Amino acid sequence: MLLVLLLAAISPEAAGQLVGGAMSDGVAYSRLEELSDTIGPRLSGSPGAEAAVSWAFDKLKRDGLSVRLEPVKVPHWVRGEERGEILPRPGIVGHPLYLTALGGSVGGDVTGEVIEARSLKEVAALGSAARGKIIFLNHTMGTEGGYGQFVELRSHGPVEAAKVGAAGVLLRSLATASLRTPHTGVTQYEDGVPRIPAAAITTEDAALIHRLLARGPVRAHFTLGSRWLPDADSANVVADVRGREKPDEVVLLGAHLDSWDLAEGSNDDGAGVAMVMEAGRLIASLKTPPRRTVRVVLFMNEENGLAGGKGYAAAHAGELGRHVVAMEADSGAHRPIGIVVHSAGDGAALLKPWLTPLASLGLDSPIDGETGGADIGPLAPASVPFAGVSVDGTHYFDLHHSPADTFDHIDAESLAKDAAAYAVLAYAFAEMPQTLARPPPAERKPHSNTKPSQAR
Amino acid sequence: MLLVLLLAAISPEAAGQLVGGAMSDGVAYSRLEELSDTIGPRLSGSPGAEAAVSWAFDKLKRDGLSVRLEPVKVPHWVRGEERGEILPRPGIVGHPLYLTALGGSVGGDVTGEVIEARSLKEVAALGSAARGKIIFLNHTMGTEGGYGQFVELRSHGPVEAAKVGAAGVLLRSLATASLRTPHTGVTQYEDGVPRIPAAAITTEDAALIHRLLARGPVRAHFTLGSRWLPDADSANVVADVRGREKPDEVVLLGAHLDSWDLAEGSNDDGAGVAMVMEAGRLIASLKTPPRRTVRVVLFMNEENGLAGGKGYAAAHAGELGRHVVAMEADSGAHRPIGIVVHSAGDGAALLKPWLTPLASLGLDSPIDGETGGADIGPLAPASVPFAGVSVDGTHYFDLHHSPADTFDHIDAESLAKDAAAYAVLAYAFAEMPQTLARPPPAERKPHSNTKPSQAR
Repeated sequence: MLLVLLLAAISPEAAGQLVGGAMSDGVAYSRLEELSDTIGPRLSGSPGAEAAVSWAFDKLKRDGLSVRLEPVKVPHWVRGEERGEILPRPGIVGHPLYLTALGGSVGGDVTGEVIEARSLKEVAALGSAARGKIIFLNHTMGTEGGYGQFVELRSHGPVEAAKVGAAGVLLRSLATASLRTPHTGVTQYEDGVPRIPAAAITTEDAALIHRLLARGPVRAHFTLGSRWLPDADSANVVADVRGREKPDEVVLLGAHLDSWDLAEGSNDDGAGVAMVMEAGRLIASLKTPPRRTVRVVLFMNEENGLAGGKGYAAAHAGELGRHVVAMEADSGAHRPIGIVVHSAGDGAALLKPWLTPLASLGLDSPIDGETGGADIGPLAPASVPFAGVSVDGTHYFDLHHSPADTFDHIDAESLAKDAAAYAVLAYAFAEMPQTLARPPPAERKPHSNTKPSQAR
Repeated sequence: MLLVLLLAAISPEAAGQLVGGAMSDGVAYSRLEELSDTIGPRLSGSPGAEAAVSWAFDKLKRDGLSVRLEPVKVPHWVRGEERGEILPRPGIVGHPLYLTALGGSVGGDVTGEVIEARSLKEVAALGSAARGKIIFLNHTMGTEGGYGQFVELRSHGPVEAAKVGAAGVLLRSLATASLRTPHTGVTQYEDGVPRIPAAAITTEDAALIHRLLARGPVRAHFTLGSRWLPDADSANVVADVRGREKPDEVVLLGAHLDSWDLAEGSNDDGAGVAMVMEAGRLIASLKTPPRRTVRVVLFMNEENGLAGGKGYAAAHAGELGRHVVAMEADSGAHRPIGIVVHSAGDGAALLKPWLTPLASLGLDSPIDGETGGADIGPLAPASVPFAGVSVDGTHYFDLHHSPADTFDHIDAESLAKDAAAYAVLAYAFAEMPQTLARPPPAERKPHSNTKPSQAR
């Protein structure tokens, strides 16, 4: 019994190095600053994305991990000039629209009457009344969830609007706070359906249009200079701390290196990148490596295509049966509030004794539940168990995909705690004698049961 | 004794009409919506400012007040295209700057090295090191005050920077919240000192420059298309509810009709306009008018010149001795937290019995202290007593002078309470047998002892 207890626990020395390092060395925070300030936005195909790949490769190598670049072809979309306005009409002044193109939107110049709809069903019901009009997609997303409920307006609103003949789409930003700040995010077209320009307007502008519509017809104009370029060459950055006993068994710890182009992507997902790099660095610095391999994967193209996530699953198809767990840090640098395990068995009970080093952070009581991440979703069909750190997502969508996703909004303490949690989690899964029971193959895993992890 | 008590109180009927009307009729809120949505920004000299003058005139006339326009000449400054960027340097990407011209800034195109300074003293101390450079004015304004402390950086930073040969100024926005949102506000040049372009950058961009300076020299570029036009004709809107016994004694209730150009100015000072118009309307609707005249004054040009405030004082110089009190509502539609009286005597004690109708709003315990307003400041040399409603200013500078000063950020309940408070206050001062003891003439009155009222 004593032997079992000893085996089912992280050594005090390793615990001290992982938690103590993450909480005190400041490396994750200073690297996130460097990524944000010296490299900046990292949309797939951009020079920033490629600079980030080189930067991460160099850092991970210097940290003592075994690093390689795994090539992926990524979509290459660029934003141009963008502006818009509500046109004046007798007795009512015109108003500028603070807007930004949805990711992937075609460019174009649209003028037309604005019609409000609040669901894809309402769009479809417009029928011929939508012809030549600008569909204004309004919604009621608030702090208490809502992104998961309304994101289809962004991803599929423009194509549904085009099906009924609309000329363009203006979406109320999917945001929980606004100071006239638009939030972008990917939209998807369909072959055979006209590609119409689509932009997100601020919540202030959405409220204004809604009020003006109560006064009578509203006409608007907007111009987007965005365009598509040929697919570009890019890469996932894959870095291993080789296991001492079972090097072929892999604990995958991921985040995504790409970001939207409106800001430095410090929270989405620079923070996740910094956390998992720090976890990898700390584990690599231990005197004795864990039993299994810990693999840090910095995925490319999470935001608009998932080429990295799909590419990793395809390139490693033969070894996914030996991926004992996958985690993705993509919920921002917010305060960690719990650990979630998704397996076929009682994974939380198995994990619990290994989390005592996180007791003072309140993270030693894992629960079984749904968790995941966009980039590790393609591993679900191979029955890879998932785990993750839940964070307080109250303010995640204040910054998400907006020009305000900047380094100064990062909470250093929460970032350090998140990094500590991932370091202990990854080490625990790599060191524990057992492995999680593998869930049945799933076509697609839900992202998470927490708000931020719903994020794309 | 009974007689005195009866005299020293507002009649239940009048109290019910004033408080009940303000709290239930929704007129202030719907008028603020109309002003915001149909007229929009109202910078002095703009078509919006003139439309607002006509709009207010018509409304006040329909409300039964005796209205006139009192002409004032106002400065006419217009914003043009504006953009900026931190220039790239080897190893460090360039970054866009989210900025907006300070009100009154000349246009121009500036490129140069960026030097940080945190006070006018530090600017002066730069000496010849500032020559040809861009001075970045940084500060630590937070929620707990600070506007009063740092506003001189905006008003006098550019002229002080020009004195040491700087080519331009970038100011960290005077803001207590930001989602990459710049805040404008007036700056003042001096004759004989070169007029250099000056813009406010967002707090995010300020933090970025500060961090980048720790990595080495920073160069930036910005372009402002702003320019000055000839002074324009405009007007104060002056509307009286004539007193039944002492019509020559005036209770002045003011707000400013102009606003900055970046948004609809719903909070600054559309809210104040809506409150004092509502107070005037409710008092005009009473069966019996108060003893003295209640005068609603909607000043023009508070934001960038104070032509309306100075013009009113000059035009009415002969009657200021009979202005028994002046109030200005210019603190936004925030929750009222108290009543302040500035007089030579125990004004609060005199007022207190008249405020019982505000007891359930927690506003029946006035205090003696400093209060005022920019437009009524020019009345201080004539010993006019001041009074005001203090509000919870915690979030006032979140929106102040920014593109986010829009109607959807208005709290209808607080607006109604503020209007109720001003209606009762104005009625009380107009009806009470006594008048406030007049303070000694003051060269210039401080705006207020509350944060929001520090605002210009």
